[in-house]
Amino acid sequence: MTQARRRHDPAVKHFASDNYAGAHPEILQALALANGGHQIAYGEDVYTEALQEVFQRHFGPGAQAWPVFNGTGANVVGLRAMTAPWEAVVCADSAHVNTDEGGAPEQTAGLKLMSVPTPDGKLTPELIDRQAWGFGDEHRAQPRVVTIAESTELGTVYTPEEIAAISAHCRELGMLLHLDGSRLINAAAALDVPLRALTTDVGVDVLSFGGTKSGLLFGEAIVVLNPSAVRGLIYLRKSSMQLASKMRFVSVQLEALLAGDLWLRNARNGNAMAARLAAAVRDIPGVTVTRAVEANAVFAVLPPEVADRLRKRFRFYTWNEATGEVRWMTAFDTTEADVDAFAAAIAEEMAQA
Amino acid sequence: MTQARRRHDPAVKHFASDNYAGAHPEILQALALANGGHQIAYGEDVYTEALQEVFQRHFGPGAQAWPVFNGTGANVVGLRAMTAPWEAVVCADSAHVNTDEGGAPEQTAGLKLMSVPTPDGKLTPELIDRQAWGFGDEHRAQPRVVTIAESTELGTVYTPEEIAAISAHCRELGMLLHLDGSRLINAAAALDVPLRALTTDVGVDVLSFGGTKSGLLFGEAIVVLNPSAVRGLIYLRKSSMQLASKMRFVSVQLEALLAGDLWLRNARNGNAMAARLAAAVRDIPGVTVTRAVEANAVFAVLPPEVADRLRKRFRFYTWNEATGEVRWMTAFDTTEADVDAFAAAIAEEMAQA
Amino acid sequence: MTQARRRHDPAVKHFASDNYAGAHPEILQALALANGGHQIAYGEDVYTEALQEVFQRHFGPGAQAWPVFNGTGANVVGLRAMTAPWEAVVCADSAHVNTDEGGAPEQTAGLKLMSVPTPDGKLTPELIDRQAWGFGDEHRAQPRVVTIAESTELGTVYTPEEIAAISAHCRELGMLLHLDGSRLINAAAALDVPLRALTTDVGVDVLSFGGTKSGLLFGEAIVVLNPSAVRGLIYLRKSSMQLASKMRFVSVQLEALLAGDLWLRNARNGNAMAARLAAAVRDIPGVTVTRAVEANAVFAVLPPEVADRLRKRFRFYTWNEATGEVRWMTAFDTTEADVDAFAAAIAEEMAQA
Amino acid sequence: MTQARRRHDPAVKHFASDNYAGAHPEILQALALANGGHQIAYGEDVYTEALQEVFQRHFGPGAQAWPVFNGTGANVVGLRAMTAPWEAVVCADSAHVNTDEGGAPEQTAGLKLMSVPTPDGKLTPELIDRQAWGFGDEHRAQPRVVTIAESTELGTVYTPEEIAAISAHCRELGMLLHLDGSRLINAAAALDVPLRALTTDVGVDVLSFGGTKSGLLFGEAIVVLNPSAVRGLIYLRKSSMQLASKMRFVSVQLEALLAGDLWLRNARNGNAMAARLAAAVRDIPGVTVTRAVEANAVFAVLPPEVADRLRKRFRFYTWNEATGEVRWMTAFDTTEADVDAFAAAIAEEMAQA
Repeated sequence: MTQARRRHDPAVKHFASDNYAGAHPEILQALALANGGHQIAYGEDVYTEALQEVFQRHFGPGAQAWPVFNGTGANVVGLRAMTAPWEAVVCADSAHVNTDEGGAPEQTAGLKLMSVPTPDGKLTPELIDRQAWGFGDEHRAQPRVVTIAESTELGTVYTPEEIAAISAHCRELGMLLHLDGSRLINAAAALDVPLRALTTDVGVDVLSFGGTKSGLLFGEAIVVLNPSAVRGLIYLRKSSMQLASKMRFVSVQLEALLAGDLWLRNARNGNAMAARLAAAVRDIPGVTVTRAVEANAVFAVLPPEVADRLRKRFRFYTWNEATGEVRWMTAFDTTEADVDAFAAAIAEEMAQA
Repeated sequence: MTQARRRHDPAVKHFASDNYAGAHPEILQALALANGGHQIAYGEDVYTEALQEVFQRHFGPGAQAWPVFNGTGANVVGLRAMTAPWEAVVCADSAHVNTDEGGAPEQTAGLKLMSVPTPDGKLTPELIDRQAWGFGDEHRAQPRVVTIAESTELGTVYTPEEIAAISAHCRELGMLLHLDGSRLINAAAALDVPLRALTTDVGVDVLSFGGTKSGLLFGEAIVVLNPSAVRGLIYLRKSSMQLASKMRFVSVQLEALLAGDLWLRNARNGNAMAARLAAAVRDIPGVTVTRAVEANAVFAVLPPEVADRLRKRFRFYTWNEATGEVRWMTAFDTTEADVDAFAAAIAEEMAQA
Repeated sequence: MTQARRRHDPAVKHFASDNYAGAHPEILQALALANGGHQIAYGEDVYTEALQEVFQRHFGPGAQAWPVFNGTGANVVGLRAMTAPWEAVVCADSAHVNTDEGGAPEQTAGLKLMSVPTPDGKLTPELIDRQAWGFGDEHRAQPRVVTIAESTELGTVYTPEEIAAISAHCRELGMLLHLDGSRLINAAAALDVPLRALTTDVGVDVLSFGGTKSGLLFGEAIVVLNPSAVRGLIYLRKSSMQLASKMRFVSVQLEALLAGDLWLRNARNGNAMAARLAAAVRDIPGVTVTRAVEANAVFAVLPPEVADRLRKRFRFYTWNEATGEVRWMTAFDTTEADVDAFAAAIAEEMAQA
Repeated sequence: MTQARRRHDPAVKHFASDNYAGAHPEILQALALANGGHQIAYGEDVYTEALQEVFQRHFGPGAQAWPVFNGTGANVVGLRAMTAPWEAVVCADSAHVNTDEGGAPEQTAGLKLMSVPTPDGKLTPELIDRQAWGFGDEHRAQPRVVTIAESTELGTVYTPEEIAAISAHCRELGMLLHLDGSRLINAAAALDVPLRALTTDVGVDVLSFGGTKSGLLFGEAIVVLNPSAVRGLIYLRKSSMQLASKMRFVSVQLEALLAGDLWLRNARNGNAMAARLAAAVRDIPGVTVTRAVEANAVFAVLPPEVADRLRKRFRFYTWNEATGEVRWMTAFDTTEADVDAFAAAIAEEMAQA
């Protein structure tokens, strides 16, 4: 019997981040399956081998999956494999890689990010052109990759057509397209399309596939859709400290997510709970939902003192100190009862405003 | 029920690496305990908080534990927090950080390693002096940290006195001492001393505490014993892509290992099995055990063609192509039967040499 | 007699960059003075020693001058000495360090730049606040330095009061102020103030003092006004490949510039010639001067086909492809005749538009 | 008239470094020739264009010369252009790039150096094999380049045959050969061979050609002999802060050195003066010349107290504190009288030992 102790109440849920959730029970089962005996370390195990076929079913026969530890690692290693040291990455100014990874791209990979302001978190060919210039000019870091997030940091979702337009533009410019898919499953579920409709079929070259926010303990995969878009990925994963020794335990979690419909169940639940929450709060006087609710995020403005009182009951983050905008995230394990209790709390606190 | 499948035979064991082993069953139990409900992400959870006390019991009241994903990450983040960009690290030329981390210290952290040849993997004050000079000379990267491994890459173990002599020498030179403890538990078990006898009590400033090789799924901890030895660790862990979002699952594994005696049971088993293997093969004509067997590694020379045949039955690595020296590692889950079967196979193959 | 050959016509002048100019004759005289015999290499020579006093006369008794090769080097080494690896630099999006140094800060120093759009190239406390937040949050590279250019890339000049307001804001935020002074002499001459009025007296911590654009063959200096603002500068200059072995030849050029009034003569000439050019073209129908002409740059819009024809006679750069805006720079050696010839050529080409 | 002052006695010479010397008078003449008027900045000037032909005369029609500021820059930019971020460089442990560049390769370029002990500063195929292994193993930084110095840090000279053997070995291993030629002219003069006999003709891929130690004010060139060996050099020179804006002044110095026989006169003088010094001191009782004197360096052991007294009259460096070995360097401007005075001083001080 383990000498660790349970220290938390599993009934408590928050609306702060899909990272606050634990792991789906099927994921723990998968770990147990893969445990026991010896397997070759560092990715030559049978689970990682089998994972390739699982990813190819979703992303096409040319897809290669490279399991890594976390989303920052997936993004940085993927982008680094797509760029030479003198090349740069165009992104939205609100991109996670630009704002929330502690400067990892610059500090550990020497990558210059060229950011573009964008109101809804989405890039367009026109916005990309604000930074994609100066090719051949040694005084300018050479724009080489465009990175977009699906769904975005602002809870918005690119349609397949929008991504296709961006990838076509990248091709014209001699650039590559990277997609940060830490919440790709939410976007696909929202649009009711297969994963490849947002990636392989619309010209994405390399993808960070998110597992942690999708119900894993931890674990993501760099998915290479265009092998000619990367160099040295196997070495960079190691030197970027993203190579798991007991990789079978990353791979089997990803298998459990993608072999059947767990990914879709998890994504649909998150999306549905966000929609339910948005619907519930729209009618509360004084609360304004500020952005389209297209995946598993709800952005809203409410009086700061109400937000502060509410936070004593449920955790969530302020998105914009200046405007008082807050972000509410749902997860694979958010229930209708959780949403209803939260909505009721919002209404109660607003009533005392 | 999980949609992943079991794909391997848990009865099969190898002697290639303690990373080939899976996780101890108590570790999986701990994960289940920590699962469910919502916990603050990125280390503000109750498991990570509680972990501090667990580490302090082993390493003293001033110890701070910073969970990370893997050993390369623990070493690189720890060393980077101990050095300014113009400072360097003295290590044995056989050090893992020098030979087996794909150049991670240099590539992702800009760290210069100054290596010293050493026959048994162990540094001494005299050997350190071969590189620890040039203080104040801008033409020389400034030696700032000595890093040693306990147990070493060559299966040898520093005594507390040897580490104390090194740390005293570091103090005299104005340098700091880092210890790569990916197999610290094996060293402590071998010497029958508490973990602090090899670290806190003998002047180690910062420690990489190994969890993965000790029976976890994954997970290590940077343990700061001298807070004045580090700067910016919290930022560097993030920017070095070593910050787990669902950190409770790293922390609870470490708790399970260290709260009771699991670490000691695991370490003793590994060591005992290495001793049993060494004893069994010493009598086989043509097999020479080449190094002291002090922890869970056995180094031996046997004819290359025998090694090749043997490898078809059990996996293990050649350590030195030139001499034909091989390395056999045992793990927390290696059984007497496993060792006996392996030793019998060695004897059989040798008999056909 | 040298075996090299003269290969150009010294009568030809352009309006492309102050880097197109050669060296002031007094600078060549200074090199000859410093030549001959042996001097200690790498900065321990008598010229570098004497240079300290020269800089202190301009920048106050606490100033320390560190000669380097070029402006990119001065900026990157200075900023790196002001930041820990996890810290970031706030700058205007048009800052040279952001747009024209080939990604040097990110690639060679791992520095994250946080850029702010600004219409006239000048930052303000309000604009700085768009990026100067998230202190203590490990997910955000930590804003530590604000860097401004005087004069700016857009030919505008900060007043002492504007710089003082920025430095006061930096102090409130716990941040430092860096000034890219590749054209500091032009700003001081334009405002008719001493160099310290724009730097030491208004709270600048570290300065890149520009020599190359001011009439040197090559050579800049990192000037530290607040010694507590930097760490390891002597080591970083070396490891950043900016330490000249025969440093006497950098230092004596800077001495020649600053010991008397050469800097002021050079700066006043550049500024006067820009003013003369602006005056001359303002009356040409179809040419619009687009920005305040405050130092030695004139920005204008004219028909692209006219610009193309004109460029066959005089070299200059397009600043903005979209608007057709061009930049005309004057230098220490631009003469009234040069300006008049250029203005006449503009008028001629416009007449054929 | 320049406002700088002469501050040193040009009659004083030392034996510390060829960097203590100033510039050859013909070099100053060349600067004057190239001065005046406007030339395109950043290397598109006529002097840099003409320089290509000058280098091609020495190094063959395929040679490309890329002027840079200093030797560290030439080495780091050249090596970086030859390697991907996951690749490593094999060098002698005494290599300048390993010991005297302040960690620049690691800190600014992320380059891992794999050093090999070597008694005379020279590598051989056998010594290279001590580090050139592990190809394809992601745990090992991938050996990609061998770098050698000609002449070496220890004053020894590789024969063309020795370099050819190394380059042939590199080809077999799929590696490239880089040559640090900061004193290439001394080696060529010593062997009485053209520069290409030690580079182009024996399979060197990329070369750092040394100008500063050869009589320039400053300035080196990266010389690419095998264009397929480099990637992105033009961008890396800029982002590594080695791109001179007024490049005509670097290029014309290199032209002055190489267009005629200035390089050979300078090299022969340095070598002859070292030989004269070695001959003069060999007969002094108590002084032992410790290494072959093949270029412009003399290594010797003499009593430390004698060295200390001697240093009050002439500057030179201790090479090895442990053995008391000192290094005496001669330069292009060392005269017979300088050598004789120094040798006499040695004899005088030894007589008082």
